[in-house]
Amino acid sequence: MDKRIKVFGFSGSLRKHSHNGALLRAAQLLAPEQMEIEIFELNDIPFYNEDIERAGLPESVKIFKEKIAAADSLLIASPEYNYSFTGVLKNAIDWASRPPAPSPLSKKQYAIMGVSGGISGTMRSQLHFRQVATAVNMTAMNKPEVYITLAKQKFNENGELTDQPTLEHLKTFLKSFYEWTTINK
Amino acid sequence: MDKRIKVFGFSGSLRKHSHNGALLRAAQLLAPEQMEIEIFELNDIPFYNEDIERAGLPESVKIFKEKIAAADSLLIASPEYNYSFTGVLKNAIDWASRPPAPSPLSKKQYAIMGVSGGISGTMRSQLHFRQVATAVNMTAMNKPEVYITLAKQKFNENGELTDQPTLEHLKTFLKSFYEWTTINK
Amino acid sequence: MDKRIKVFGFSGSLRKHSHNGALLRAAQLLAPEQMEIEIFELNDIPFYNEDIERAGLPESVKIFKEKIAAADSLLIASPEYNYSFTGVLKNAIDWASRPPAPSPLSKKQYAIMGVSGGISGTMRSQLHFRQVATAVNMTAMNKPEVYITLAKQKFNENGELTDQPTLEHLKTFLKSFYEWTTINK
Amino acid sequence: MDKRIKVFGFSGSLRKHSHNGALLRAAQLLAPEQMEIEIFELNDIPFYNEDIERAGLPESVKIFKEKIAAADSLLIASPEYNYSFTGVLKNAIDWASRPPAPSPLSKKQYAIMGVSGGISGTMRSQLHFRQVATAVNMTAMNKPEVYITLAKQKFNENGELTDQPTLEHLKTFLKSFYEWTTINK
Repeated sequence: MDKRIKVFGFSGSLRKHSHNGALLRAAQLLAPEQMEIEIFELNDIPFYNEDIERAGLPESVKIFKEKIAAADSLLIASPEYNYSFTGVLKNAIDWASRPPAPSPLSKKQYAIMGVSGGISGTMRSQLHFRQVATAVNMTAMNKPEVYITLAKQKFNENGELTDQPTLEHLKTFLKSFYEWTTINK
Repeated sequence: MDKRIKVFGFSGSLRKHSHNGALLRAAQLLAPEQMEIEIFELNDIPFYNEDIERAGLPESVKIFKEKIAAADSLLIASPEYNYSFTGVLKNAIDWASRPPAPSPLSKKQYAIMGVSGGISGTMRSQLHFRQVATAVNMTAMNKPEVYITLAKQKFNENGELTDQPTLEHLKTFLKSFYEWTTINK
Repeated sequence: MDKRIKVFGFSGSLRKHSHNGALLRAAQLLAPEQMEIEIFELNDIPFYNEDIERAGLPESVKIFKEKIAAADSLLIASPEYNYSFTGVLKNAIDWASRPPAPSPLSKKQYAIMGVSGGISGTMRSQLHFRQVATAVNMTAMNKPEVYITLAKQKFNENGELTDQPTLEHLKTFLKSFYEWTTINK
Repeated sequence: MDKRIKVFGFSGSLRKHSHNGALLRAAQLLAPEQMEIEIFELNDIPFYNEDIERAGLPESVKIFKEKIAAADSLLIASPEYNYSFTGVLKNAIDWASRPPAPSPLSKKQYAIMGVSGGISGTMRSQLHFRQVATAVNMTAMNKPEVYITLAKQKFNENGELTDQPTLEHLKTFLKSFYEWTTINK
């Protein structure tokens, strides 16, 4: 474990105190030393519209695509709204998949995780995301998986992940993600 | 067939000359006389963000929810981007599903259709949508289905649906939709 | 609540002491008085094979299709194996969907429920099933849903459902199922 | 391209003259010289039933698991019945995923392809399969994809794939599959 890697992370929630945003920050703290996670906010990415695209790629989208291209792998935190991912997350991926080819997503390794208020742990959202990831030719880490249920019992009032078993599991997940990213490079 | 119904229609594409927008307009023209379709553009609906929601529901969202509530049924045109629906469409549904309960989507009857540039005919997008519709308790018309492939062969340069078999199928679909909406009222 | 209805129930597990089989039997006991649930075992339904079909419909399949046709609605208990339904369940539905048309499944009302050993509560299995049900034009009850997690904590050694909150929820579910079946008749 | 690999192939259809079986045989003929495809029939694999499993793994299942373990990668032909895979295919995967750990499926590379009578080209079936493959930790080749529509126009009366563009595409697919299998070894 001596190769440095750069991971690019983003969450499908725009809310300032989002649990999925907090999960990304927890991952930043718990990541193996050789793995640097940069977190990007999707707030400035507009809705995809081919008319806008033809007038020139929005600056936020350019930056988003460059950061994806420069990363060794992607770490995605996906909330679950109504049994699927958020419009915010899907929209960002759609922008990144657009020409010119090759898309920075193509063959990009990724891992996905999520936290829900209820009992799904974002299972359904993650499965929809994996389907989209197949479309854009991303390479998935299958296991381990991170499905965090009942957010309010796992995060404190400051939005910090404090649940001990979840912290341990997240550490294991990140270690696997580090190894999987480096092995496939 | 003598009961008047009001259908509220929207498309998951923001592009001005979108084929899915054009499909909705074709439906407007071909609908049974007793079925009035109002088309709504999703351009003004912002990304869902709970912080914004708490500050007060955006005007565009209020109108969107009221129009859903007032309609007898919904007609949705769903493009397919990367094997799923667009962020635009998912985002609009998520807003409409938010409190106060009951959501205007609950028990609302809907039909879905779509047109793709390629050969999927938006099959995959529609299936993801149906999953979300289950979450928000909408009532689906299963059959017939409208999967229009190879858009450029079916629509002319002015964005008008001109393919004769597709026009016939759309007519049948709309007639079924009319009957299904009225029977379940 | 005075209309008698006949519900036809089956489970996707063949195991004698299956928790999903036990869930169906619990439903039988808890159902509203006017709702009679007949349970059918799928053990005798062979793998679908068009060669066999052409030689003559197997007796077990004939009976299965007749019982579906005679029922007011279907109650399906779906285990989750590897994030989806079982081969047993899918295979039975495929047989029932085969010619001659109309399939007894067409426009048949159904509700689905499931119990898992782990934390998914069969969410993923049920969503795959709902997709198949759309294909065969069954009419779904969306809500309430029954996702029973951690089977061993909810059923006793004799395979009886003993968890009180789950029993209450199942009762509510069955009452809704009764009402929904009768309203749509 | 000088490394010999062994591919283990199976189809989700039991029908003797199945188009998906024929597709596997076409792949056998078109595969790169260094890639040997063994085809296995799923006819002898019984329905999964934990009661049977406890009494001792059926001989057919033992052989199936051994052949998966011995292969460099798997080639799966998945028909589409009612918008999903067949019970036959799901059942076989479920058996292979059962203890003792590690399952021979774990980290096994695979590619999937399919042929349908209609216009879906088995898209929906393949997506359900990919979800199951995630569950059992198989490693997917994302691209290229093989969705063969309108079977009767592509295969002759002897069940041979004769459509020239499809043959070319299948060749490209198999070449990619060869390279992807060897690179990841």
